Amino acid sequence: MAMYGLVEYEDAAPDVRAIYDDIMATRKVDWINNFWKAIARDPALLRRTWESVKQIMAPGAIDPLIKEMVYVAVSVTNGCEYCIASHAASARKQGMTPEMFHELMAVVGMANETNRLVKGYQVEIDDAFKKPAI
Amino acid sequence: MAMYGLVEYEDAAPDVRAIYDDIMATRKVDWINNFWKAIARDPALLRRTWESVKQIMAPGAIDPLIKEMVYVAVSVTNGCEYCIASHAASARKQGMTPEMFHELMAVVGMANETNRLVKGYQVEIDDAFKKPAI
Amino acid sequence: MAMYGLVEYEDAAPDVRAIYDDIMATRKVDWINNFWKAIARDPALLRRTWESVKQIMAPGAIDPLIKEMVYVAVSVTNGCEYCIASHAASARKQGMTPEMFHELMAVVGMANETNRLVKGYQVEIDDAFKKPAI
Amino acid sequence: MAMYGLVEYEDAAPDVRAIYDDIMATRKVDWINNFWKAIARDPALLRRTWESVKQIMAPGAIDPLIKEMVYVAVSVTNGCEYCIASHAASARKQGMTPEMFHELMAVVGMANETNRLVKGYQVEIDDAFKKPAI
Amino acid sequence: MAMYGLVEYEDAAPDVRAIYDDIMATRKVDWINNFWKAIARDPALLRRTWESVKQIMAPGAIDPLIKEMVYVAVSVTNGCEYCIASHAASARKQGMTPEMFHELMAVVGMANETNRLVKGYQVEIDDAFKKPAI
Amino acid sequence: MAMYGLVEYEDAAPDVRAIYDDIMATRKVDWINNFWKAIARDPALLRRTWESVKQIMAPGAIDPLIKEMVYVAVSVTNGCEYCIASHAASARKQGMTPEMFHELMAVVGMANETNRLVKGYQVEIDDAFKKPAI
Repeated sequence: MAMYGLVEYEDAAPDVRAIYDDIMATRKVDWINNFWKAIARDPALLRRTWESVKQIMAPGAIDPLIKEMVYVAVSVTNGCEYCIASHAASARKQGMTPEMFHELMAVVGMANETNRLVKGYQVEIDDAFKKPAI
Repeated sequence: MAMYGLVEYEDAAPDVRAIYDDIMATRKVDWINNFWKAIARDPALLRRTWESVKQIMAPGAIDPLIKEMVYVAVSVTNGCEYCIASHAASARKQGMTPEMFHELMAVVGMANETNRLVKGYQVEIDDAFKKPAI
Repeated sequence: MAMYGLVEYEDAAPDVRAIYDDIMATRKVDWINNFWKAIARDPALLRRTWESVKQIMAPGAIDPLIKEMVYVAVSVTNGCEYCIASHAASARKQGMTPEMFHELMAVVGMANETNRLVKGYQVEIDDAFKKPAI
Repeated sequence: MAMYGLVEYEDAAPDVRAIYDDIMATRKVDWINNFWKAIARDPALLRRTWESVKQIMAPGAIDPLIKEMVYVAVSVTNGCEYCIASHAASARKQGMTPEMFHELMAVVGMANETNRLVKGYQVEIDDAFKKPAI
Repeated sequence: MAMYGLVEYEDAAPDVRAIYDDIMATRKVDWINNFWKAIARDPALLRRTWESVKQIMAPGAIDPLIKEMVYVAVSVTNGCEYCIASHAASARKQGMTPEMFHELMAVVGMANETNRLVKGYQVEIDDAFKKPAI
Repeated sequence: MAMYGLVEYEDAAPDVRAIYDDIMATRKVDWINNFWKAIARDPALLRRTWESVKQIMAPGAIDPLIKEMVYVAVSVTNGCEYCIASHAASARKQGMTPEMFHELMAVVGMANETNRLVKGYQVEIDDAFKKPAI
């Protein structure tokens, strides 16, 4: 149960309700998931988080579907069950097929494995990788 | 310095050298980076890791460039400097622009933030997210 | 369910019971939470952990309330649900208001985000930060 | 070396320079540390991050010094060397004494230990900790 | 509930069923645990993971019991409840006593604590530890 | 450079020096590594940590060599370079062969991979794994 409970739409103050409306309009959904209702206890956090998420997850140089899949990859690495469930749902809605999910998990698993092999074997960065990218 | 030193190409046993050759041919490069030279101390680990990486990072339902970017996202989340440097280099070689990198980092940063907000506020998974995907 | 079950007060050996008594007396509570009952299967671990916690969480240069809030911050970062729930309860008991919790979560979220931006952008430590603190 | 290099003040576009000026004015310093110069390659990220940090780290229900110490605690838990160095410097500037740092580290260390004991012993949340906080 | 559901033995395609048979024969058990049934949605991932696990967990320079205990140590550090439960069960089956588990947890807890003290105090690697191991 | 510098033997107060002596005597070495010198700035932390480490790493139900290897496994998972270097050195001194290290890394890598597959596929704990161990 959320630590300070959930702020339901009908109980929300106008500023919170306006953000709920924007979330639903932007995502073309007719309900608010628990994450937003939980952090709505702190309207400043709700606004800041939503504005950042809205800006970051919008179409840009990377496709929104790919962004959702990256979100899943990070959430799996951190072990955040809620985040995996919610962002995988978003990714599926945007077109992630089971095959894409399987490949995503394969990459995430392998990256987590080789990240540790690198640390364990104390591998030094090759000079070729030290050059700035521009 | 790698814990058991690096296995250079000219010192490598034939089975290790064959893997080095396959790495270079597959990636169209003419050198082997330190990661492979470090784990080559254990030829079984080298073979298993390379065969998995080769299979996983190949074109499939997800584009190889996207796979490299997911690799970067995981490595950033885990704080593996070597892995960030090497996979960002691979991603750039495959076409990752600075704009794509910036957006990738924005998503990774935001995911790491909201992963913690979810845990901190003890958000329960919505019923809508509990349904199996198929 | 705890891996080796819980050691209830009435079933506890005298040395374990003495620690339980000290926990209750120190914390001014009349019950023992599951963490202690679970690790009591290993009385040496119970004693060592309790003595360290008792010493570390006592008033000192940092206020006990702040120490509990730092405990919550670390537990959120690590995703330990039990630890979040139990230490947030302790913090509230010592005076943490909802506003303080909200600000704490905002800092924890932001730190987790910028920790990754630093790694991803491969930021080098400024010389000004390299000087020893004394 | 930062992946896309650092944006120095004299080379910065007006919008970036304005943020640099605000950082220096807000923090009462006369230089910009590498973190901001590295992420300035993405002015949108720079602005969003600075505005969030400025808002979150300001005086509120929690003292700014405590916020800096929480930042250090999270950064230590995540192993971000840059973040530890820079936020410890900020904390010291705001009054963190060596004794406070020692106690902070003791709490961070203990929390990281008990977080794992909880997971390892599979401790279930006590009913008393499941009640919402309000 | 597993994201794409579980592949039960009776519904499994021949290649998946063959792997299930090999898992049961190798481990001398007459059932398949959920992990394998969940990743069986991706037969290539199932095969690759099983072949690696089979090879890695076999008797070698390290005893299989010790390998299971290391698996538990890593899973506790990462907070993977499923992995802790399943590998602790395997370890117990191979002879891990409660005393061994207690000592394992003590080491895991202490390592997680000192890992952070090292980062927090910014301890530099002693020259004596920088020499390659061979 | 350690945040508050290192406490060298010749500059140490008697209580710190006594702990240094005990470390050297217990470990049969004639020098103190940087970790202890860094945390010696807080004599209470030094004492508590050393007494715990001494007790935990001593021979018991698990062999000291295995304990050192578990320490390495956790440190690799957390990415603590200092801890990897120092505990691998201890393990080698106690008899860890290159083959043992290679197998250890293989287990650590695989555990880190499957930990994420479990989270990503949202695998539920089998009833058989839910039974208490005693």
